[in-house]
Amino acid sequence: MKLNEALEQIQPVTQEALDAAQARIDRQAKPQGSLGRLEEFGRRFVAITGRKSVRNKAIFTFAGDHGVTEEGVSAFPREVTPQMVCNFLNGGAAVNALARHAGAKLTVVDMGVDHDFEKLDGLIDRKIGHGTANFCKGPAMSREEAVRCLEAGIELAVQSREKDFDLVGTGDMGIGNTTPSAAIVAAFSGLPVKDVTHRGTGIDDAALQRKVAVIEKGMEVNNPDPNDPVDVLAKVGGFEIGGIAGLVLGCAAVGIPVVVDGFISTAGALIASELHPNVRDYIFAAHQSVEIGHAHMLERIGQKPILDLQMRLGEGTGAALAMTLIEAALRGYREIATFDEVGVSEAGD
Amino acid sequence: MKLNEALEQIQPVTQEALDAAQARIDRQAKPQGSLGRLEEFGRRFVAITGRKSVRNKAIFTFAGDHGVTEEGVSAFPREVTPQMVCNFLNGGAAVNALARHAGAKLTVVDMGVDHDFEKLDGLIDRKIGHGTANFCKGPAMSREEAVRCLEAGIELAVQSREKDFDLVGTGDMGIGNTTPSAAIVAAFSGLPVKDVTHRGTGIDDAALQRKVAVIEKGMEVNNPDPNDPVDVLAKVGGFEIGGIAGLVLGCAAVGIPVVVDGFISTAGALIASELHPNVRDYIFAAHQSVEIGHAHMLERIGQKPILDLQMRLGEGTGAALAMTLIEAALRGYREIATFDEVGVSEAGD
Repeated sequence: MKLNEALEQIQPVTQEALDAAQARIDRQAKPQGSLGRLEEFGRRFVAITGRKSVRNKAIFTFAGDHGVTEEGVSAFPREVTPQMVCNFLNGGAAVNALARHAGAKLTVVDMGVDHDFEKLDGLIDRKIGHGTANFCKGPAMSREEAVRCLEAGIELAVQSREKDFDLVGTGDMGIGNTTPSAAIVAAFSGLPVKDVTHRGTGIDDAALQRKVAVIEKGMEVNNPDPNDPVDVLAKVGGFEIGGIAGLVLGCAAVGIPVVVDGFISTAGALIASELHPNVRDYIFAAHQSVEIGHAHMLERIGQKPILDLQMRLGEGTGAALAMTLIEAALRGYREIATFDEVGVSEAGD
Repeated sequence: MKLNEALEQIQPVTQEALDAAQARIDRQAKPQGSLGRLEEFGRRFVAITGRKSVRNKAIFTFAGDHGVTEEGVSAFPREVTPQMVCNFLNGGAAVNALARHAGAKLTVVDMGVDHDFEKLDGLIDRKIGHGTANFCKGPAMSREEAVRCLEAGIELAVQSREKDFDLVGTGDMGIGNTTPSAAIVAAFSGLPVKDVTHRGTGIDDAALQRKVAVIEKGMEVNNPDPNDPVDVLAKVGGFEIGGIAGLVLGCAAVGIPVVVDGFISTAGALIASELHPNVRDYIFAAHQSVEIGHAHMLERIGQKPILDLQMRLGEGTGAALAMTLIEAALRGYREIATFDEVGVSEAGD
């Protein structure tokens, strides 16, 4: 599916559908609203899908490398990106463990890792290049490449729909990718770079100062246009961020609730939300990342995080955890009896 | 097991055991600390139990009625307590749905419901009385009854240990029971009653004012001694709160991590923690309740809530959800490969 087709297909989730789902919850034998946000999760899933249960769950972890790592913005060396891709494929990473816990199928998407993998089970090849260009010296990628990233993600959403995946999660792997993510939120929000830039996998004060200066330079060199999200992606984004943006947008187009992981995934979700306002209706924000720019992204998207466990790993780990809570909410939706069914007195009776 | 025996048996969870568990986590192929509180959950469970997985999980929902309901402190009529007990036994309540989601066995304990149940599957009879006395007119129960409540809970922990339950959750049912819970936190903290008293299942402003006045009167009439937790339980507590306190204390005595639900359960956990300081080491605080007194309780206990989903239902619903996150943490503990195993470069390599 082309980007324009996907954008045309996106429909708002109606208040009518949300109210109908909440009406069922309000008849259940408990004080109204007493399950708090669990009611929100159930109501939204039911309103989006028209279903009360999840048949299959998928997490897509998008991987890519970043030219900007040559500026020394990460605590880890660049070769960790392909190493971790292999770790994902061998099932030994954190997201593997948590996806198994959630019962979600994990797929790794090579959007632009600086390594040529053999054909491997569980790895989808959508490589746009061997890492982006260093955005301190010009755009990270061309506009045409940015659209290809988005359409790769959209296609995965379309395939998920065809295969009866009712809940999709996002994840990322890419050494250096908190740097473009901070640039993206700075571009859309207009906030100073230092207010949205944090320590990634654990850099020290000096490295953090350098990272802020690197992003400021990237913004100056490229001047991304906040009214043109494809321009922002192309100039200061990343291949895996573009894939995530496409997946989120595609999920909105085909009507799949999408659980967006942490800082990098939310940068992708933000691009998708700026491309079409109703993308927001389909997003579940998995968790509050430790990264200071994350709250600003979520504010623009208008979704509150499900969890706050001080996590800062990415990969899709937060998405996997949040999926289990959405399924818990659906259990409640399906299985809590109504006042009529059980003969329990209501408030004020 | 008698109360004094249980108190003598409680051991601190050692820093050595916690450090040993964390050392394994720190060798796993991810930036150190990047799984945030999930690492804490795994570390604490392993340190407490010496195990890396949960064999069986149980939730005990303690039910009791409250004499103070005659003062008009609840939005729901008193007969809802036995009605909800029947709903639990029929499997139609929120805690049933969420316990099934968590794979936990639910047991209902009648500590003092004002109704005579037949012998029913899934219901344990530990009835101390047909509801407590109205604490506006004197103590809610005698000191001897308070000790019987505690020992009933302790015995359930001992039985859980014998049956290989490695994770236990608490829950409550009792119309009016936010009132004694607020009284308990006021007694221990010395905070003004109005600062720890909230809307329970949903009372309006006038009823909230009345509830505050009722608790203030109960405190004045009874003058509970904060240095004597059994006195606090007897004078302004409840039968189900005593059962919960005993279960929490018993779990600490036999070495079972205990997931404490919301406001009422935490009132029980607070009594247990005031009886022996090391009870705290075994407590996982399931979630942040909407009740304003809850944060004060958790502060005294020294545990941070796992979830914050604006829930205010009780029953053990929060405990069921939090159990799934503790199990997710253990998945990570067992299954995330170490740097050595997978040949991933470390930070600063």
